[in-house]
Amino acid sequence: MTELLIALREMLGEKGVLEGEAVRSRQSSYWHRQPMQAQAILRPANSLELSACLRLCHAAGQAVIPLGGNTGLAEATASTAEHMMLSLERMQRIEAVDEVGRTMTVEAGAILQTVQERAAEAGLLFPVDLGARGSCTIGGMLATNAGGFSVMRYGMMRERVLGLEAVLADGTVISSLAGYLKNNTGYDLKQLFVGSEGTLGVISRAVLRLEELPTARTTAMIAVRSFDQMTALLKHLDRTANGALCAFEVMWNEFFLLNTGAHSEHSSPFAEAWPFYVLVEWQGSDEADLRQRFEQALGAAFEEDLLADAVIAQSLNEREALWAIREATEPEERYFGKTQGFDVSLAIRDMDAFVGRLQSDLAELDAHARLLVFGHLADGNLHLTVGMHEPWPSHEQVEQVVYGCVQAFAGAVSAEHGIGLEKKAWLPISRQPAELDLMRLLKRTLDPRGILNPGKIFDL
Amino acid sequence: MTELLIALREMLGEKGVLEGEAVRSRQSSYWHRQPMQAQAILRPANSLELSACLRLCHAAGQAVIPLGGNTGLAEATASTAEHMMLSLERMQRIEAVDEVGRTMTVEAGAILQTVQERAAEAGLLFPVDLGARGSCTIGGMLATNAGGFSVMRYGMMRERVLGLEAVLADGTVISSLAGYLKNNTGYDLKQLFVGSEGTLGVISRAVLRLEELPTARTTAMIAVRSFDQMTALLKHLDRTANGALCAFEVMWNEFFLLNTGAHSEHSSPFAEAWPFYVLVEWQGSDEADLRQRFEQALGAAFEEDLLADAVIAQSLNEREALWAIREATEPEERYFGKTQGFDVSLAIRDMDAFVGRLQSDLAELDAHARLLVFGHLADGNLHLTVGMHEPWPSHEQVEQVVYGCVQAFAGAVSAEHGIGLEKKAWLPISRQPAELDLMRLLKRTLDPRGILNPGKIFDL
Repeated sequence: MTELLIALREMLGEKGVLEGEAVRSRQSSYWHRQPMQAQAILRPANSLELSACLRLCHAAGQAVIPLGGNTGLAEATASTAEHMMLSLERMQRIEAVDEVGRTMTVEAGAILQTVQERAAEAGLLFPVDLGARGSCTIGGMLATNAGGFSVMRYGMMRERVLGLEAVLADGTVISSLAGYLKNNTGYDLKQLFVGSEGTLGVISRAVLRLEELPTARTTAMIAVRSFDQMTALLKHLDRTANGALCAFEVMWNEFFLLNTGAHSEHSSPFAEAWPFYVLVEWQGSDEADLRQRFEQALGAAFEEDLLADAVIAQSLNEREALWAIREATEPEERYFGKTQGFDVSLAIRDMDAFVGRLQSDLAELDAHARLLVFGHLADGNLHLTVGMHEPWPSHEQVEQVVYGCVQAFAGAVSAEHGIGLEKKAWLPISRQPAELDLMRLLKRTLDPRGILNPGKIFDL
Repeated sequence: MTELLIALREMLGEKGVLEGEAVRSRQSSYWHRQPMQAQAILRPANSLELSACLRLCHAAGQAVIPLGGNTGLAEATASTAEHMMLSLERMQRIEAVDEVGRTMTVEAGAILQTVQERAAEAGLLFPVDLGARGSCTIGGMLATNAGGFSVMRYGMMRERVLGLEAVLADGTVISSLAGYLKNNTGYDLKQLFVGSEGTLGVISRAVLRLEELPTARTTAMIAVRSFDQMTALLKHLDRTANGALCAFEVMWNEFFLLNTGAHSEHSSPFAEAWPFYVLVEWQGSDEADLRQRFEQALGAAFEEDLLADAVIAQSLNEREALWAIREATEPEERYFGKTQGFDVSLAIRDMDAFVGRLQSDLAELDAHARLLVFGHLADGNLHLTVGMHEPWPSHEQVEQVVYGCVQAFAGAVSAEHGIGLEKKAWLPISRQPAELDLMRLLKRTLDPRGILNPGKIFDL
């Protein structure tokens, strides 16, 4: 055992350091089932211990990989046998709920679902929501600036955090835990840590901004004839919703057809097929009022030729059936021999042309490849799945085609998943050399020994 | 003329450099009518010229003060005869309005009101609004992270900017002009420049996030009996408004009484006096529907004992009369020999105790001092005016008392005005030594020669 590990054990105690089988029994990442590799998993019980961990590792030049719920999709917590994992799984406390200020102070290891439930108990909402809610942590979500369904109304994690405590590579604790919306007292240091994927500091505590809990919602699946009709519909529904619009989830026809077809357990609520479908949801506090305004808005949209057809969910079951079409992933797995997913952003006005060009570029690569597209339209965010049958093109060939199109439309290679290792090679498509130089300068300044999640996002 | 000035004249041309009387004829700051002091005012016509200005000044070690509309309240653009002012007044272009993506790309010298009007022409809203709208610039608002009336619904400037171009001290252009909500491609560099008061870079262009333009609004003045009643009213109105609540402007009784009394042209809409008054506004798209829901919400609030009395504006004139009470500043000037203003944040739940303690601490300092308080309650932001008659205590004595209370309640010495020179001495009340060290480290890293707005916010 190394001197460092002995010192860490002494400081953290038995429960604070896992080694051997306790490390290998964990999965290395969301995508890879291989055993986790690391010298040890460090599990500090509080910010002081976390700070001491980093101070010791910094002195020893030991590389450290901060670990949240291990649900990230960009290999931002990939590790080797030489690394120390730094997990906040023993720092899950919800320290305070302020019902008047509508804030919650948490340790960064707190699980999203726990935070959501605790907020709901107080009649409040923590509005960032994702599929991984049962295991992802607030710290991991902040480190990756997670987004999800309701960004158009509530913003990403960056907009949901009022105060932050983070520990720098050398163990210095930067505590900016103020809990009010307006705070222009010098540089807003928390912004450095949000979205930097654990490369500039380890987030240890946060003050989250909550909202009043909506108690009513109304949901519809809408069919539209053209992309332009869909963007006009977004503007119309956003204007008439006046703040209540929480989801405008767009599905291109191929995606919708697969998810309602023979390979799926779900079925289309429409008799006909249409070029695009939109899952729309309004949330509010008065069921009858919300429903009435929603129906009026859809009626007006129909009259103004902003939609082709619409089905409003009449029950919770019907709502879930509509969402299931949008959230289904099994049909892809059943139908294709191989799939490859992407998470990109681009200007809304370019999306139709982008998808058209990507389809034709993919067809050149592989005549049998199919492109499935859904996305959070208002956020400029499309999720793409390329479905293939054998013989399939290489991972890199598909990336080349997709990111080539992203570059042609000045898009972002990552909308909400981050860069990690997965997209590191493609980052220069979305960021200019001067930006990358400045990122490297910040990294060298805040972590001069390069111990924090080294090699992630970019190389020094 | 120095070599540097000769080189700058050659590069920028006749219109690009103002000297002598053209400098002195300007006012030094919003508060101070003395002539502006500077070697020259540099007026680049585009980002390239701006970059060249900074490259030349950097090489010469010349201190540069970035200048927006000169409407800041914290002396963040104060200068001496040795400084060069760097004004973006020739960079006011609105480069593009994207009605589908609801964005506007502007040069940083663009005037707020021009941006608002151009957005409105496209049926869109740029929602950050302040009294200085006719002269403040987007660049200055971003550099100070301006807030204003509708932060609770729409956020501060930080939340309204999707893309940013800024020029570093050495002339390097950092161009991150993407225009979509979700973009997790490495560090979010624009956050460095927003709110850093021109000390880390000069903002040259921005992509702003717009909203659908509300076409209806409804406004009321509400009287409440207690602070707790007021916070419960905020929660009730926010829940029932479901996104439509745009203003919840709170006035403590002394403020309200002065602004509706003998020294004012305005009068109270209530027969009785109350401990607190709230100016509430909902905005939406359907006048009749908005009005009906607003009246219902106020009716329910009355039944649930969340308000004492309420007056809804029945016309545009009545609306303006209600806002005039909140925005009036003349009564203070007429009544007091001297006033001193503050802009602070603190947890909402502490506000009542904070004001009570501050009143008693002020009374100890000066038995005749009066404390006038109004604020953006949901933002945690109070604006305080201390009104005094002769013999008045010193500026520093009053600061000592006010910021002493702010410190006792872990508040922020600046909510939305920034630090500049005005609050530099008080910054350590709101930020810890480790935070200030990290700010200094960032400053030294991005501006190693210290030429950008030196001495503002903190000393190195």
